[in-house]
Amino acid sequence: MLQDKNPSKTDIAKLGEFGLIKTLTENFKIQNPSTIKGVGDDAAVLRYNDKDALASTDLLVEGIHFDLAYFPLKHLGYKAAVVNFSDIYAMNGMATQLLVGLAVSNRFPLEAIEEIYEGIKLACRIYNVDMVGGDTTSSRSGLILSPTALGEVETNKVVYRSGAKPNDLIVVTGDLGAAYMGLLVLQRENETFKANPQHQPDLTPYTYVVERQLKPEARKDVPLLLRELDIQPTAMIDISDGLSSEVLHITQQSGVGANIYAEKIPIDPQTILTAEEFNISELTAALNGGEDYELLMTISQKDYEKIQYRKEFAVIGHITEDKGAYLITQDNKKIALKAQGWNALKD
Amino acid sequence: MLQDKNPSKTDIAKLGEFGLIKTLTENFKIQNPSTIKGVGDDAAVLRYNDKDALASTDLLVEGIHFDLAYFPLKHLGYKAAVVNFSDIYAMNGMATQLLVGLAVSNRFPLEAIEEIYEGIKLACRIYNVDMVGGDTTSSRSGLILSPTALGEVETNKVVYRSGAKPNDLIVVTGDLGAAYMGLLVLQRENETFKANPQHQPDLTPYTYVVERQLKPEARKDVPLLLRELDIQPTAMIDISDGLSSEVLHITQQSGVGANIYAEKIPIDPQTILTAEEFNISELTAALNGGEDYELLMTISQKDYEKIQYRKEFAVIGHITEDKGAYLITQDNKKIALKAQGWNALKD
Repeated sequence: MLQDKNPSKTDIAKLGEFGLIKTLTENFKIQNPSTIKGVGDDAAVLRYNDKDALASTDLLVEGIHFDLAYFPLKHLGYKAAVVNFSDIYAMNGMATQLLVGLAVSNRFPLEAIEEIYEGIKLACRIYNVDMVGGDTTSSRSGLILSPTALGEVETNKVVYRSGAKPNDLIVVTGDLGAAYMGLLVLQRENETFKANPQHQPDLTPYTYVVERQLKPEARKDVPLLLRELDIQPTAMIDISDGLSSEVLHITQQSGVGANIYAEKIPIDPQTILTAEEFNISELTAALNGGEDYELLMTISQKDYEKIQYRKEFAVIGHITEDKGAYLITQDNKKIALKAQGWNALKD
Repeated sequence: MLQDKNPSKTDIAKLGEFGLIKTLTENFKIQNPSTIKGVGDDAAVLRYNDKDALASTDLLVEGIHFDLAYFPLKHLGYKAAVVNFSDIYAMNGMATQLLVGLAVSNRFPLEAIEEIYEGIKLACRIYNVDMVGGDTTSSRSGLILSPTALGEVETNKVVYRSGAKPNDLIVVTGDLGAAYMGLLVLQRENETFKANPQHQPDLTPYTYVVERQLKPEARKDVPLLLRELDIQPTAMIDISDGLSSEVLHITQQSGVGANIYAEKIPIDPQTILTAEEFNISELTAALNGGEDYELLMTISQKDYEKIQYRKEFAVIGHITEDKGAYLITQDNKKIALKAQGWNALKD
């Protein structure tokens, strides 16, 4: 009755998640001296004397980000917490507090919600984070988790997405693409189970990729290691939407370009085998799969020798002056990177 | 397939929102020195040198907290922001930053989401708060808003729910019950409109109560006024769930009791007229209606003269040593207060 039923329509799926966020947030003005960085990075940066506070929030929506048919509730709570901590580590900070908003329908008994919280609790214990608040309410359908992580970082150590310079090295931690292959395995097993409930899945050949999907870990060790090695990255971001999308965030926000080399991208053998089985390229999983929660950073060339023998890091390319971002294939073809993102708004 | 399909079941509706939150959060241990107060108050308190940071999150779920049939989108954004600021003011602090999680289905065009953000933006401008981040994703059904407000307060000024002492005065700001009567008016008009789309609603007699529902304001002025008057409340909470529920939060967390006097509870004449029309007691609206976003506080008796002529405050009772919390009616009956809460988990 008070609502305009016929506004002119722009399909949000066409804009995509990043376009939507940009459209929605470009006109917010900063008003408080304690706000150092607002929208546009992994976390907000707030100044409190010699330390900066960090804040980040990520929603997890049933049917969009997870399917309870194959996602155990405790793992879900764990993952919801960890993906938010990951945003704090991506600012080179330490996660310190967590707030959790939870909307559930009555089809969930208390024990189900307690399992989710068990997972959150476990993540808080392992990552040394305090659960400090939240809100719990009902929803008409589906489960929604809305955690907000807070953290801190020394004022001169915070790393944004926007500081990459030409000739900087592009570095990733861990390996990529496994979480996406784990998702495909779980989805296939779930379909098989629905067709034949007697089916006993054997996940043994997929242990690593399934664990990367169901129980991802955030790289708390990396900000600590960077201090130990005396490296201050010029830019950093966590890999939640796939390598392509994250490289583009850094190049666009830094006003630079990038070349990354296909053969340098670290991919676990199990990811490669599983990708072969699904008849897709493991590179696709690494570039567009997402949910690896590794860190992508750029560092000055002078820091190369500090990391060259560290197994935690792989140099996968370099920043260029011209503004395109490209994948260089093994046969030396140059392919423009595209942001696939989560496509969470597409269906 | 990995999920236990038959857990033993406890109905979360029976526990209620507060029981659920208590059950879920009682085992979280504090690990960081910067965490001063975790779960259990309006906002978390984090220490950064001489100032404390505050953090609070409140979910708004379509079909539970609002109905888009009568809730304009811009107002919804405004309200989502304001109710979170209110939690910060209830700690005697100032709201400074906001993060917003938003889940929408594709039935919402961009313009609808922009309207929500227009409301958020307006609230941020009026309340001097910076929008610093968030997350936007799709949902299978319904609209969910998950804002997190951050704020700050001088270390020695923070006010918890737990500090009320026997003989303290119980004080509320503004007037109560209007937002609930506004909700009943809007729901009735919506039913009439559904039955007869030609129906032209005349909301003129209900302007105030409808505005209290659709465009609530948080009491940013109160922490400032308390400093001006040199009053440090012993306990404070915002009135989101109704006066009864909030009095009980304070008495239970402070280990005290309370007597509040029916005839002292400030209620607007329009609230009284509307309640008469709906054949309910205006006291019920004030005690159990919720969503007024006024502040309820306890102050020392010595501070009485500082507020006695201030129109912003009404003394409605006092704290007692024995642990019951009661409403004293005009004919001197003593009725135990009950927490109705939002009942958001009941249906």
